Amino acid sequence: MEQTSFPPMSRVAICGGTHGNELTGVYVVREMQKQKVDKLGSASVTAVLANPRATDVCRRYIEKDLNRCFTDALLRSPITDSTPYELRRAQELNAQLGPKGSEEAVDLLIDLHNTTANMGLCLIFYSLDWITLHIYKYIQSKMTNVPVRAIQLDVPMSDAYSLESVGKHGFAIEVGPQPNGVLRADIFNAVKSAVDLTLTWLQEFSSGCTFEGGEVEAYTFAKHVDYPRDPAGEITAAVHPELQDKDFKLLRSGDPVFLMFSGETVTHEGEELYPFFVNECAYYEKNIAFQLARRTTFTLPSICLGN
Amino acid sequence: MEQTSFPPMSRVAICGGTHGNELTGVYVVREMQKQKVDKLGSASVTAVLANPRATDVCRRYIEKDLNRCFTDALLRSPITDSTPYELRRAQELNAQLGPKGSEEAVDLLIDLHNTTANMGLCLIFYSLDWITLHIYKYIQSKMTNVPVRAIQLDVPMSDAYSLESVGKHGFAIEVGPQPNGVLRADIFNAVKSAVDLTLTWLQEFSSGCTFEGGEVEAYTFAKHVDYPRDPAGEITAAVHPELQDKDFKLLRSGDPVFLMFSGETVTHEGEELYPFFVNECAYYEKNIAFQLARRTTFTLPSICLGN
Repeated sequence: MEQTSFPPMSRVAICGGTHGNELTGVYVVREMQKQKVDKLGSASVTAVLANPRATDVCRRYIEKDLNRCFTDALLRSPITDSTPYELRRAQELNAQLGPKGSEEAVDLLIDLHNTTANMGLCLIFYSLDWITLHIYKYIQSKMTNVPVRAIQLDVPMSDAYSLESVGKHGFAIEVGPQPNGVLRADIFNAVKSAVDLTLTWLQEFSSGCTFEGGEVEAYTFAKHVDYPRDPAGEITAAVHPELQDKDFKLLRSGDPVFLMFSGETVTHEGEELYPFFVNECAYYEKNIAFQLARRTTFTLPSICLGN
Repeated sequence: MEQTSFPPMSRVAICGGTHGNELTGVYVVREMQKQKVDKLGSASVTAVLANPRATDVCRRYIEKDLNRCFTDALLRSPITDSTPYELRRAQELNAQLGPKGSEEAVDLLIDLHNTTANMGLCLIFYSLDWITLHIYKYIQSKMTNVPVRAIQLDVPMSDAYSLESVGKHGFAIEVGPQPNGVLRADIFNAVKSAVDLTLTWLQEFSSGCTFEGGEVEAYTFAKHVDYPRDPAGEITAAVHPELQDKDFKLLRSGDPVFLMFSGETVTHEGEELYPFFVNECAYYEKNIAFQLARRTTFTLPSICLGN
């Protein structure tokens, strides 16, 4: 594959607290603000607490999930007296860090998240993007104490609903397991390392380094699975102990997925797929017990700075 | 030690959802209600969802922590328009299951809780009580897949603030680690086993079995430790990775307890004590990073049914 060149990356945003009860991002961003981190060589770095009101009360959101507000349609919707706080905040963030899809948008936007699922450290991204896949490859090669994986969502950019879609390049860093409202030192350190490695990669890229191509693996979203429920909508089972904490372990036909409160086991049927977001707290209300993915290998070109 | 006899236990209450985001108790109680469990030999069993409004919105509480509302003073306080929901609910529960300290109170009240700390299964009780210590000894002897411990709080009964103090005998079952808002099958099964073993013990007691005396160990509360904080009250450290998940592992002078965001380690100084509730989510707002206890051995008399 040929070497591909990319223009300079001069503006970077590190965001946390998009969900106010996911504390790693809240404290990484606050520490960056306290340390007044704002420069990286010739590039500017901005640390942003995305949902300060939800952070103050340690909840995911006040009125509406902020990280579902960044579609083109919602970013363009008129503000009225009844507009939820998070939609106003999304439009503010889009004005500050975007506008999404424009030349004025920050070059790289990283949004820091936690999950209650045993997912290790995952980079979540929308479309294929050589810059972000190279950063992923770099982080994966340098971090040894936590598994580093990538998840690709299959959503067109106009429908991309989360904050990182506002940058020219962007990804979420999703790390777990950590309960909402709890800060674990091991996970704080892992996320801080991933952010520091990203900034180091950008410095090396800006100083003219070439990053060799190669192969990376990513998990591409296939489908959601909901909990078994009774006619009133109440769940009637928990994730099976053999699936709990087994994110990214291939699920084969016949493997247990739910343990009914009545004692029976429900098994997976059909295509072999990789589970992730297994028993994520915030997804009970979204009717998702776990998600399933296919594993794909991507071949990357070498990249370097160009114009 | 002599054999001690106790009057029959004819009314039992199993409560859950006192904290609406601690899901094990919510689902164990709902399942008992669905299965219409209401009899145990000649005894009555009542399954009670203690804080239904907080459970509906999956929060610890709506206005005030329900499990701090059962002191004599609060149970006697007059209800006005500005009385918080949870204090009204505490007085309702006291009328239904108590009144606390009276002959009409249920004989045994068990309240089901979860913690984000790695505490296994703990029975938490106020004063020394041969009945509850015998139930603890019985559960501990039968459960092999999870550590079973007892914690004694040093609070006089009039100031006892939590729901289980309403029963003639009572304890909380506190199980973790489980994130708030998440239901784990392994923890659901452990709590269900502990409840079933308690009911089996009661049946054996009612049918005239003598329970042999012996020794049990319990952890008696010594003190709280708060997070390091800056002048604005913001935490400036996380629980150290060497203490995280190490509940009930003896903490010696010089052992790490906090990792400052700036990188330094804070150590434990002074008396050797046993940590518990290490990094419990709900205790951030109560200014508690972990609690410390002494380990004590109690010698129990044999007990049997009397009048």
